[in-house]
Amino acid sequence: MNGLITLLTDFGTADGYVGEVKGTLLTLAPGVTVVDIAHDLPAGDVAAACYVLGRVWRSFPPGTIHLAIVDPGVGSSRRALAAEAGGHGFVAPDNGLLSDVFAAAPERAVRLTVPAEASRTFHGRDVFAPAAARLASGGALADLGPAVRDPVRLKAPLLKVEAGDLVGEVVHVDRFGTLVTNLPREHVAAEGRVRVAGHDLPLKATFADVPQGEPVAFIGSGGTLEIAVRDGRADVVLGLSRGAEVRATARRG
Amino acid sequence: MNGLITLLTDFGTADGYVGEVKGTLLTLAPGVTVVDIAHDLPAGDVAAACYVLGRVWRSFPPGTIHLAIVDPGVGSSRRALAAEAGGHGFVAPDNGLLSDVFAAAPERAVRLTVPAEASRTFHGRDVFAPAAARLASGGALADLGPAVRDPVRLKAPLLKVEAGDLVGEVVHVDRFGTLVTNLPREHVAAEGRVRVAGHDLPLKATFADVPQGEPVAFIGSGGTLEIAVRDGRADVVLGLSRGAEVRATARRG
Amino acid sequence: MNGLITLLTDFGTADGYVGEVKGTLLTLAPGVTVVDIAHDLPAGDVAAACYVLGRVWRSFPPGTIHLAIVDPGVGSSRRALAAEAGGHGFVAPDNGLLSDVFAAAPERAVRLTVPAEASRTFHGRDVFAPAAARLASGGALADLGPAVRDPVRLKAPLLKVEAGDLVGEVVHVDRFGTLVTNLPREHVAAEGRVRVAGHDLPLKATFADVPQGEPVAFIGSGGTLEIAVRDGRADVVLGLSRGAEVRATARRG
Repeated sequence: MNGLITLLTDFGTADGYVGEVKGTLLTLAPGVTVVDIAHDLPAGDVAAACYVLGRVWRSFPPGTIHLAIVDPGVGSSRRALAAEAGGHGFVAPDNGLLSDVFAAAPERAVRLTVPAEASRTFHGRDVFAPAAARLASGGALADLGPAVRDPVRLKAPLLKVEAGDLVGEVVHVDRFGTLVTNLPREHVAAEGRVRVAGHDLPLKATFADVPQGEPVAFIGSGGTLEIAVRDGRADVVLGLSRGAEVRATARRG
Repeated sequence: MNGLITLLTDFGTADGYVGEVKGTLLTLAPGVTVVDIAHDLPAGDVAAACYVLGRVWRSFPPGTIHLAIVDPGVGSSRRALAAEAGGHGFVAPDNGLLSDVFAAAPERAVRLTVPAEASRTFHGRDVFAPAAARLASGGALADLGPAVRDPVRLKAPLLKVEAGDLVGEVVHVDRFGTLVTNLPREHVAAEGRVRVAGHDLPLKATFADVPQGEPVAFIGSGGTLEIAVRDGRADVVLGLSRGAEVRATARRG
Repeated sequence: MNGLITLLTDFGTADGYVGEVKGTLLTLAPGVTVVDIAHDLPAGDVAAACYVLGRVWRSFPPGTIHLAIVDPGVGSSRRALAAEAGGHGFVAPDNGLLSDVFAAAPERAVRLTVPAEASRTFHGRDVFAPAAARLASGGALADLGPAVRDPVRLKAPLLKVEAGDLVGEVVHVDRFGTLVTNLPREHVAAEGRVRVAGHDLPLKATFADVPQGEPVAFIGSGGTLEIAVRDGRADVVLGLSRGAEVRATARRG
């Protein structure tokens, strides 16, 4: 553990929920550094949280604890998890939020015990934060609860090769309206074309390689194909959102 | 003092005001840890700030300084306060923002001196932040100004028993559209019903106990009755906002 | 260097970009304190970032590193800068973002080398954050790249004297709808009038000096003339935005 706890939620920035979680962390693990990732994830959007966390955790040093709370099923029978993967710690509801992390690094996971006095609607404060504080303080994962061998995983997005095309999906739309796909750099032909919703787009190095207002495909900062409009919003211009099918010429050999 | 200063404002996250306050704190009290609570409180909404701070402060360890700035009367004759209550420190305008804190824990309060060179429109930077820095550095409350015995208090929301009903109000609407009331857990009959705006709702343990789209009442994470719609927004579905009357069967005895 | 790195971006608070930058900073410069200024600057609005940073940096102690990323030209031929000015460090794209800082304090600037493996669309993570980490760790500016003698500067807003009037512009509209101008306190006649878009406004000490709903001019917390509406939004009431001409009686002598 390195004393860092990151915090990713859909709690917004007009309520006290983020503050109650931070206060709990700083009470139970004095001296930790709490790092805000984002708190305006769309309410209840587990897939968005999964995508964001799946990218962000790798930028932090090993030993960081990542506390991620997008939890529309709080208070139901969904399990509460703590896990270790890739040398990092994770605490989150067992609703698929950790799917991308676990797909990238083999996990060990445990089911957190929910104290009788925990609020039924705020496990972030009463279950997840205390577990994150214990991990950050050097507590052993195994001491937090019994092993979980089958954490919930979100359905993987479409990814296949068909008639020389690599076929995948838009998996995230970012703040700038950029469409992020799951087509990995290493399988996309550098000289190829990209087709999406009837549009045929050039593959360039970056959006600055086309005129203003033009759509373009490029390999994005997460290592997959992205589609943007220079100085515009690709989601609006192309009328696309998460789940839209995207085709690119597949690399041969 | 424990070196923690929390920050709750309506300054938003597209301007530099939050940054100017943080810079002032870190200049005057090097080494303190500034903890963001929320900065997107509705502009000028003292009651919302009062509610949020009234919940959040208890989650932090004793010795924390809470700097809360929602200050539509800045530059007028409203007083500037520093206070101690419940083992925590508080710095805020004297506009009722600290009402919920003071209702929960007896306070000692002082009136901050406003330096002649302070901006008339940004006491957050020029009056409140310096006071918070002094408290966090171990300065004595009494050294910050003369005692105040009558800090402004917001009108308490309605709360009464009437014909076997506990009658109160919606005191906060959160990011998820959940309606938080002031009906305390210990006075609400566990087997009773909840009536609001012509609706008759069941009292359950949590919103996960009703089907999707259904409204439900439950005891929320702050210890009072809340009304939510599972996977929906209660404020929209029920057409309610802060101040709406809520009735629940009162507990007997 | 004092171990503080401030962060100002247009990355928003629903994506992971802020988190990837923070993780990179905390990996490359363990122990630094990252201070959020604001992340909801209008997307690509370099002038807004320039204004906000131009005010905020002065509130921090000398030796602070300010990392500011509003970078619509990322991946084009625009240069990447690191600089020292006024005893502070700065890292930003060379698009004019640092204009207000450099106008206030003479700068030394260098052009950052862009590693071949850097993402073409996320220099914040791959170019700017590593440079900020090096400066915060005590690295020398000159070691980061060759000197730049002509950093890009935004066109200065209009400011002139005409027939006894000081004539300038609205340079920023804040979260509260307040119109901030570039008319400096020391050149505005204390007893004068202010004219904007056909309105003739009194110059008062603060907005609390007029009745609710009334527009008023006063010297704001940044030391220039501002126009506000008490308990309202001046941008909406007066129908004005950035760039609008503002006239005030000029101080004589």
